[in-house]
Amino acid sequence: MPSSSPSPSPFPGAPQELLYEGKAKRVYRTADPQVYLCQYKDDATAFNAEKRGSIAGKGEVNCTVSSHLFRYLAQQGIPNHFLAQPSPTEMQVKAVTILPLEVVVRNRTAGSLCKRLGLERGLPIDPPLLEFYYKNDALGDPLVTQDHIRLLKLATPSQVEQVGSLALTINGHLQTFWRACQLELVDFKLEFGCDAEGEILLADEISPDTCRLWDLAAGDDSAPRVLDKDLFRFDLGDPVAGYQEVLQRVLQVVEQQPHPNSA
Amino acid sequence: MPSSSPSPSPFPGAPQELLYEGKAKRVYRTADPQVYLCQYKDDATAFNAEKRGSIAGKGEVNCTVSSHLFRYLAQQGIPNHFLAQPSPTEMQVKAVTILPLEVVVRNRTAGSLCKRLGLERGLPIDPPLLEFYYKNDALGDPLVTQDHIRLLKLATPSQVEQVGSLALTINGHLQTFWRACQLELVDFKLEFGCDAEGEILLADEISPDTCRLWDLAAGDDSAPRVLDKDLFRFDLGDPVAGYQEVLQRVLQVVEQQPHPNSA
Ligand SMILES: Nc1ncnc2c1ncn2[C@@H]1O[C@H](COP(=O)(O)OP(=O)(O)O)[C@@H](O)[C@H]1O
Ligand SMILES: Nc1ncnc2c1ncn2[C@@H]1O[C@H](COP(=O)(O)OP(=O)(O)O)[C@@H](O)[C@H]1O
Ligand SMILES: [Mg+2]
Ligand SMILES: [Mg+2]
Repeated sequence: MPSSSPSPSPFPGAPQELLYEGKAKRVYRTADPQVYLCQYKDDATAFNAEKRGSIAGKGEVNCTVSSHLFRYLAQQGIPNHFLAQPSPTEMQVKAVTILPLEVVVRNRTAGSLCKRLGLERGLPIDPPLLEFYYKNDALGDPLVTQDHIRLLKLATPSQVEQVGSLALTINGHLQTFWRACQLELVDFKLEFGCDAEGEILLADEISPDTCRLWDLAAGDDSAPRVLDKDLFRFDLGDPVAGYQEVLQRVLQVVEQQPHPNSA
Repeated sequence: MPSSSPSPSPFPGAPQELLYEGKAKRVYRTADPQVYLCQYKDDATAFNAEKRGSIAGKGEVNCTVSSHLFRYLAQQGIPNHFLAQPSPTEMQVKAVTILPLEVVVRNRTAGSLCKRLGLERGLPIDPPLLEFYYKNDALGDPLVTQDHIRLLKLATPSQVEQVGSLALTINGHLQTFWRACQLELVDFKLEFGCDAEGEILLADEISPDTCRLWDLAAGDDSAPRVLDKDLFRFDLGDPVAGYQEVLQRVLQVVEQQPHPNSA
């Protein structure tokens, strides 16, 4: 192993070249061209990086929560990029080409939806609302319609169909999982990618950074107890404690229901 | 006729009560509950009324151009609200309940599309792009998907289907008309309403305020000669002269092809 390796790790697929440093993670190439390593950071940003900070322990929480959710979704038949969690803040994933789309599913009104459309927060949305955003920080991730996606060639119509339908199926599975944690899944953002064979895989992360989670054991629809990045976005409470509480609830649930992959 | 009448006009359907004063027009109730009178103003606004001004003669140009276009579209079988143009700045229309949607069709990239999605100006769009915006000044007329329209109950799915398909048909007819005026129809905004029978009618106006028109006889795609509200929005030239030139071209075309309704 070369001494210049950015973070020597004693496992196959150790990080080699830094491919991309994002707002929340670093992505490394490994010796295997089909495998990347994601390092989860404590850095926190909101409102297209206008607000910046750090949440101690967030990298570990998000990496561990994401790992458990990807294992659970794989068991439910949802193809995804997860391979292993070699350390508390590192995830080995299948290398994919990310579709430049943020796929959002909403079960209740919150966040930018309320602001854009003048809706009250906390109204149930049934059937769930599916939205696509163009993943482009310079443009502030604008909302796009299927026609915009075609115009910009962000994905083929069949890919849009596929990820939209996957996102709604994933919503059902995630609602079940988070409910077991006594958390309501208000909304969430997914990213998908294509692997070397052109197969579409769920990728990126699923964590309190990317899901709005409201405590089912406290608060109510008009004054929810939030346990997600809104703690940081809107200074609603201690994000460090909130993220740890989500991790603890997830660990309790997965320990009750052990499964073969949870090495 | 009461002396308090805001603008005594010697025709059936004279204005009675002012129902609504918008950015570009005043809408009056008349003696006939099924008929409204629209008075076109010279007031000009842009960027959700952040920029305000006045364009001398605009009311007359927009009222006259709209009247000719509504007559032409009626001949092509497009149901619309136009009844008569009793004076240069007044239009008698069928009273409708306006759907709170701005229906936009784009044949070439320009304006907010370029800004939102980072596209170069002037690229051809084929097939044309159809967009819906929530007509709500307080929210800045946000872009909406069909799912947002359903969530907000702005229109029924069948109404959305109907106005979308009408808008694309109208696009073909308007492209033909404006081409006869030596103008390229880059994009435009339509509004639709429901009459007392629940029938959907094309309403509002079609004018250099609501169409982007590029001179086919001068300029090119990268440096077009614009003859529409962009003259005012971006200070590209004299809007008064530009609007008059559009009116003259329209009058020339309709005089070449007289039709029964052009009283
Ligand atoms: N399996 C994968 N293969 C390739 N790229 C991935 C994979 N999973 C996630 N990514 C990408 O890696 C980056 C993760 O870093 P992050 O800090 O979240 O970035 P960003 O600031 O763009 O959101 C994102 O651009 C994400 O799309
Ligand atoms: N046939 C009609 N019946 C009722 N309302 C109409 C009709 N045609 C247009 N309108 C409405 O009248 C108003 C026209 O005034 P305008 O100055 O363009 O308003 P705005 O500032 O809302 O764009 C708009 O709200 C438009 O929707
Ligand atoms: Mg990210
Ligand atoms: Mg208007």
